[in-house]
Amino acid sequence: MSDLAAVLARIDADLDAALERLFALLRIPSISTDPAYAAACQACADWHVADLRSIGFEASARTTPGQPIVVAHDRSAPGPSALFYGHYDVQPVDPLDLWESDPFEPFIETRADGSRAIRARGASDDKGQLMAFVEACRAWKAVAGRLPIPVSILLEGEEESGGVNLPPFLKAHAEELRADIGLICDTNMWDKQTPAIQTMLRGLCGEEIVIHAADRDLHSGFYGSAAANPNHILARILADLHDANGRVTLPGFYDGVPELPETLRAQWETLNFDPAAFLGAIGLSVPAGERGRTALEMVWSRPTCEINGMGGGYQGAGFKTVIPAVASAKVSFRLVFDQDPHAIRAAFREFVRARVPADCRVEFLEHGAGQAIRFPIDAPAFGKTRDALTAEWGRPAVFIGGGGSIPVTHELKQALGMDVILAGFALDDDRIHSPNEKYELESFRRGVRSWARILHALA
Amino acid sequence: MSDLAAVLARIDADLDAALERLFALLRIPSISTDPAYAAACQACADWHVADLRSIGFEASARTTPGQPIVVAHDRSAPGPSALFYGHYDVQPVDPLDLWESDPFEPFIETRADGSRAIRARGASDDKGQLMAFVEACRAWKAVAGRLPIPVSILLEGEEESGGVNLPPFLKAHAEELRADIGLICDTNMWDKQTPAIQTMLRGLCGEEIVIHAADRDLHSGFYGSAAANPNHILARILADLHDANGRVTLPGFYDGVPELPETLRAQWETLNFDPAAFLGAIGLSVPAGERGRTALEMVWSRPTCEINGMGGGYQGAGFKTVIPAVASAKVSFRLVFDQDPHAIRAAFREFVRARVPADCRVEFLEHGAGQAIRFPIDAPAFGKTRDALTAEWGRPAVFIGGGGSIPVTHELKQALGMDVILAGFALDDDRIHSPNEKYELESFRRGVRSWARILHALA
Repeated sequence: MSDLAAVLARIDADLDAALERLFALLRIPSISTDPAYAAACQACADWHVADLRSIGFEASARTTPGQPIVVAHDRSAPGPSALFYGHYDVQPVDPLDLWESDPFEPFIETRADGSRAIRARGASDDKGQLMAFVEACRAWKAVAGRLPIPVSILLEGEEESGGVNLPPFLKAHAEELRADIGLICDTNMWDKQTPAIQTMLRGLCGEEIVIHAADRDLHSGFYGSAAANPNHILARILADLHDANGRVTLPGFYDGVPELPETLRAQWETLNFDPAAFLGAIGLSVPAGERGRTALEMVWSRPTCEINGMGGGYQGAGFKTVIPAVASAKVSFRLVFDQDPHAIRAAFREFVRARVPADCRVEFLEHGAGQAIRFPIDAPAFGKTRDALTAEWGRPAVFIGGGGSIPVTHELKQALGMDVILAGFALDDDRIHSPNEKYELESFRRGVRSWARILHALA
Repeated sequence: MSDLAAVLARIDADLDAALERLFALLRIPSISTDPAYAAACQACADWHVADLRSIGFEASARTTPGQPIVVAHDRSAPGPSALFYGHYDVQPVDPLDLWESDPFEPFIETRADGSRAIRARGASDDKGQLMAFVEACRAWKAVAGRLPIPVSILLEGEEESGGVNLPPFLKAHAEELRADIGLICDTNMWDKQTPAIQTMLRGLCGEEIVIHAADRDLHSGFYGSAAANPNHILARILADLHDANGRVTLPGFYDGVPELPETLRAQWETLNFDPAAFLGAIGLSVPAGERGRTALEMVWSRPTCEINGMGGGYQGAGFKTVIPAVASAKVSFRLVFDQDPHAIRAAFREFVRARVPADCRVEFLEHGAGQAIRFPIDAPAFGKTRDALTAEWGRPAVFIGGGGSIPVTHELKQALGMDVILAGFALDDDRIHSPNEKYELESFRRGVRSWARILHALA
């Protein structure tokens, strides 16, 4: 039996124990955006350090101004090195009443068709995905006594909350972290049967605006019309962000956004993406967004502007005839190709300021910025990874785009000069960022096996 | 000493005890819109029943499908009868962190200039105002052994939450409640020195809309643009409600809204209303609303549309790249002259439906409706009341308009055929519906004295 075959067998035999480890991790409520969970984030980092040490990594939790960053190395093998990135923090769990179980009490759900899923916040994004890699390393160490290649592991704790502390950390530790290739697990398969390597990633610009009007809440009967209502100002700003054709109206927004190259368009057409099924799965049927663009274009290669949150005035039960003093919104832009997040933030602020009356005031809070990224898919590591995935899943792995932003990909490229292979096993219906998040048990099991194969292929 | 002089002296002598009674009432957190405070509303009604019985009224708390209604009678005197209306419920207290003291722990604040104010939720709206009337009755009973005229008292517990149960109650008890004149205390003085009788009241149409899009919260990276975002739909609807000139765009909205009669416009001009001071007092300086209208017109005789609350998506600390499943808003229209609240609700719903995509759904919740009202100010009771107020305050009382809605006024007119005298002692800076609500101690003391004089004048 080859080393690889033995490793794969070991992975299958060890699955229950691997799930126990994952469950222990999922029980830690590491919501990085909410200061109330700072201790949980620290506990999560400590858990990883202990776990990685137990399989022979030299691991430590590094202090940052925010959540700690876990760094681990096992460079005992010769050959080209890899830096694996994952994040141990998770999204908030509200609205909590829509969860069918405790978000931090993971369990295996068995469906009528016999398929099984791991349910918990972070099951897919990103604890299940990152533990798939760690378990692959564990199996290699157990079977072969060493990893196929030198491996460093970097686990962030602020991916879901702007990640402002990672870029300076990468710069400060460039020598320690640089490797021949980056590996990132934070992505999806094309579908349940088809593994995928994501070669385009959208960037992100997140911004919060707070409109201040009167110096107190007012009675709308006494001040209505005459006094500025920040809800009206905010609604106008937010409505103005899109025109009737679904295009974003910020001046210069589409600078650096070319039409999709014909080769890529042709390849995507072979994917037989079904927009009706895509929307139908979430209870919708009418494509929103830019007129004349396919849904796949919209989520992979077109920039977007979304209001992720907004609020002002009385939102409780019943009614309150109030004109609030304050209204606010959180807006994010997904960026493609050469769009500049800083230019877009500046254009957005200018756009907002132009719509705020002289006696009102606007406050801006920055929530992260990352440029879009594309990788040269003809580099050898990409081909080797594709072959390894194809072998595991019995179906050709595909090169795809993707809608989410993984700013660290850009940082690894820019700060450390590394290309990155984005190969994850999440599915579109994993409900990440939503109530009742899940990760397929098969995503986990075959994810571990896939990483074991990829480590072997890269050697 | 005349009876009236003795009553006024008694009122001044009894002020501390009257304040103790008011404070006991203010300590009951009777927030009618929030089901969590139902017991407090009941306790408040019971408190009034006991208090009114203690001064010889035949009083009881009547059950309704909502909060109880207190009814009390003392018809031992001969002459024209009066029905006094007040409400014992109060507005919610959020945002609680802007209160400088516990909203339900009343106290007397003494300012540098020696003036004093009662601070608490409901101090002005409406517990202080209604107890001014009750204390006037108490003094008459104590001094003269009876009231100058037959008096009924009606205390509602849902004025701040739509008041849907009062109209059927009035209809069902029309015979019991009908009187020669209605007295309502829920209004303001023109300024600190000038008493006023409000002869125009705007109506109200309150409506809540809930936009449902996808069947779950979505990750904005995976679904952005392609999937409907209810925040965008809502912002568009809310922004579309006003045009660039501040006019409401609902079709037919201005039907039944004439220009202000010249005589009334001329009278209002003598009031020397100062729009800069009006806005300056709340930290604003730029008149919002309809271009070409004065601020006084806007708050007294023009209809308005205000977004009292709106919300959708993530509003906590930090950032969450979510497309929410739901977004909602509470919108109120202040109505004037002959605007029909039901026609406006229908027009609003039509307006909203036309802007909701076919795969999304809108839910409507009705929050009250009342038409605007005007009284014939040449009726004798109005002149007598004006004279009584002028005698107490040493300054001619004025007939004014008003911005708030008191739907019961319309109901008394329509269901019971009664004219209503609206004479209250609140001030524009009382912060009703806002944190740190207050009622001037002088409003209370001279309010009690004013009602004692009015009861005498109406005999």
